[in-house]
Amino acid sequence: MNPTSLAPSELAYVPFVSVDNMMKNVSAIGVETVMKGIADYIEEDFLRWESFDKKPRIPAHAPQGVIELMPTSDGKTFGFKYVNGHPDNIKDGRQTVTGFGVLSDLSTGYPLLFTEMTILTALRTAANSALAAKYLAPKSSKTMAIIGNGAQSDFQCLAFKTMLGITEIRAYDIDPDASVRLARNLATSGLNVTICKTAEDAIEGAQIITTVTADKKCATILTDNMVGPGVHINAVGGDCPGKTELHKDILLRSDIFVEFPDQTHIEGEFQQLPRDHPVTELWQVYAGQAAGRTSEHQITLFDSVGFAIEDFSALRYVRDMLPKTGYFEKLDLLADPDDPRDLFGMVLRAEAGRNGEAA
Amino acid sequence: MNPTSLAPSELAYVPFVSVDNMMKNVSAIGVETVMKGIADYIEEDFLRWESFDKKPRIPAHAPQGVIELMPTSDGKTFGFKYVNGHPDNIKDGRQTVTGFGVLSDLSTGYPLLFTEMTILTALRTAANSALAAKYLAPKSSKTMAIIGNGAQSDFQCLAFKTMLGITEIRAYDIDPDASVRLARNLATSGLNVTICKTAEDAIEGAQIITTVTADKKCATILTDNMVGPGVHINAVGGDCPGKTELHKDILLRSDIFVEFPDQTHIEGEFQQLPRDHPVTELWQVYAGQAAGRTSEHQITLFDSVGFAIEDFSALRYVRDMLPKTGYFEKLDLLADPDDPRDLFGMVLRAEAGRNGEAA
Repeated sequence: MNPTSLAPSELAYVPFVSVDNMMKNVSAIGVETVMKGIADYIEEDFLRWESFDKKPRIPAHAPQGVIELMPTSDGKTFGFKYVNGHPDNIKDGRQTVTGFGVLSDLSTGYPLLFTEMTILTALRTAANSALAAKYLAPKSSKTMAIIGNGAQSDFQCLAFKTMLGITEIRAYDIDPDASVRLARNLATSGLNVTICKTAEDAIEGAQIITTVTADKKCATILTDNMVGPGVHINAVGGDCPGKTELHKDILLRSDIFVEFPDQTHIEGEFQQLPRDHPVTELWQVYAGQAAGRTSEHQITLFDSVGFAIEDFSALRYVRDMLPKTGYFEKLDLLADPDDPRDLFGMVLRAEAGRNGEAA
Repeated sequence: MNPTSLAPSELAYVPFVSVDNMMKNVSAIGVETVMKGIADYIEEDFLRWESFDKKPRIPAHAPQGVIELMPTSDGKTFGFKYVNGHPDNIKDGRQTVTGFGVLSDLSTGYPLLFTEMTILTALRTAANSALAAKYLAPKSSKTMAIIGNGAQSDFQCLAFKTMLGITEIRAYDIDPDASVRLARNLATSGLNVTICKTAEDAIEGAQIITTVTADKKCATILTDNMVGPGVHINAVGGDCPGKTELHKDILLRSDIFVEFPDQTHIEGEFQQLPRDHPVTELWQVYAGQAAGRTSEHQITLFDSVGFAIEDFSALRYVRDMLPKTGYFEKLDLLADPDDPRDLFGMVLRAEAGRNGEAA
């Protein structure tokens, strides 16, 4: 038997983007360009909102955290993300949130892409925030307060720089080292970073307030008296039941914009209000079916929780990017015998082939 | 910067079993031993049935087929399988059913194993059938009819040989070439294979009748008059809405055993009967809480559809097998910066490292 006949056909391979290759892709294209690109794909997908199968996340809970599967489909392509949330992971050097995802051709069921999504989720979350802010933030916003200076904060700052023209960052974290880390990472970005001693200090003069803290509890990062008229609040950190960042009175003074109300009411700041409190769906704003910012004095609030369609958009972006960069591997994931019915024969032939090689 | 410091830590890696490595593992251990091992793990997990989170499959449909996610958890470990079913795939050389799966530590959310599951599903399905038959088939069964001689049939024959002592196979398929293929693959297995011209011919003298056809429609592979008293029917092929293999009258004469009644009533032969028709859950038989076979004349029917816990058991088996065989790769799937909060810094350092290397 000819050993070369044992090599899988092209059908067996699935493009795989490792963490290392994701970093190479991002470096090759540029982190700001990637986020702008993902934002375009998200906007495109939100504009065809009705064509998506919108399911709630499927969670598995443990005392330490949760693993969730987030599937969606537009009828032609299927995507899902695996993501975990384990706040205590940081103590033994693990990420609190990691993920990976798959994009598949629904007409054959075959995966088109398997990729790490820890870095990709950070990119898409920031891209998504900046996209919403394009419609909601005051025109000519220059200054953003960022409260919570963890893993997501760098990406938020850069997305708002590139997509909204933000030039000044006012950073605050209960851990001053986190703010120093953020300032160091942004040192060559063109952004001016001011490290602030309090949250009140950070929001001074900011047109945009981004909250992205990580505590898994109901916290009050912003109290009502801290928020003046006309600002846009980009509330990213409150993203699971029992985890919020804003005082309820801020919500009552704001016009609230959400991805998918049923999910946001479970996971977002919106969990503090009754389900029938009026909120606006972002896709309707993008489609021109609902108003975004309508006045200078209005407080707009994007209650971000992260939705499966955004991951779908990010997966589509990566799939389309790979032929240009070439930074991926091929994973031998799909059994591909010559005769699709002869799975066992494939096992037998592989065995015979190896014995032949060894002899 | 020292390039070696850019290498991911052990925490970043997930063991990955490709199709090629799955074949090497199966060859190294022996296909019959693997199936016996998986059956033991399934039995173990069915005996702690109550500790599992039992969810319905999560499907995404297209005209050509379906992609399903099948998650489950025992509160400590999480597993899911991705599986597709596309009957027309065979026309362009693809598998009708392919799959892959993940096993994770629910206390950290980190994956422990990522593996192909096309071959593994074939192994676990046959192991699961033989396990049920150990409790349900007539004692000293020697002859099995197998109707439908596609990809799953070889595995079924070998599992029943090793776990029940079957020595005679009577094979029938509407495509005679499929039976020839099966006979060829089993030529050195120790099983005597008789290729039969009709289904009636195949079941002559058989104590066990396995139906494992692939048509996605309600078919009648077995009619009522074909089935005599005392046999065990292992009905594997009927496994989605609108796809059945047996005439309803056979069901009415049989004692029906199922994995999870709510799922079987949607996907199995059971869909032909009202939901309140009595069926017995296999885990109760294994636990001694319900009777299996009680008389010589009884017709027992295992209405197999495939349940998430069986995949969980198979994933556990593979995870425990890998340290012995060593046939796996390490996949750089999880972002693992030195400081878990500094995801962006990792991207920056990787870039600096590469530039340093290039200089």
